[in-house]
Amino acid sequence: MARVVVNVMPKPEILDPQGKAVTGALQRLGFDGLTVRQGKRFEIEVDGEVTEARLDEIRKAADTLLANTVIESFDVVVEEQAASAGVA
Amino acid sequence: MARVVVNVMPKPEILDPQGKAVTGALQRLGFDGLTVRQGKRFEIEVDGEVTEARLDEIRKAADTLLANTVIESFDVVVEEQAASAGVA
Repeated sequence: MARVVVNVMPKPEILDPQGKAVTGALQRLGFDGLTVRQGKRFEIEVDGEVTEARLDEIRKAADTLLANTVIESFDVVVEEQAASAGVA
Repeated sequence: MARVVVNVMPKPEILDPQGKAVTGALQRLGFDGLTVRQGKRFEIEVDGEVTEARLDEIRKAADTLLANTVIESFDVVVEEQAASAGVA
């Protein structure tokens, strides 16, 4: 089982009200000098091997379903299994 | 301006209804063999340099505000500026 990550972010020219709210909240909590934009992260477990054809399929899925490409951009990242060791 | 990314994901033992819905929708659209979990991605522009103390502050911010650590886990990644070249 390989893992592919799709990151979806609001385009730079698009207002990001969620990110604005988080930025304001951080400031009020005393965390200064941080500007936040909020997007989505999809972790996709792929049955079988991640071939270039499979990646193309995932890019198509991201374009069709995961991102609204009018206002969002996405990128597709193949994740090393070793790199998935998270914090907390 | 450096960029730090905080990834927030539902913990493995927690049900993820958003991810389930996306997994089902992908199947109905003909994308087979993909299992999705959905989380959040925060891109944080940091004023000044990203020192270890600054990172600790961001970890604390993530723990306090960005993630609900009862049901979500997070990891903090310092992003190379060159690596931010996205697709689409």
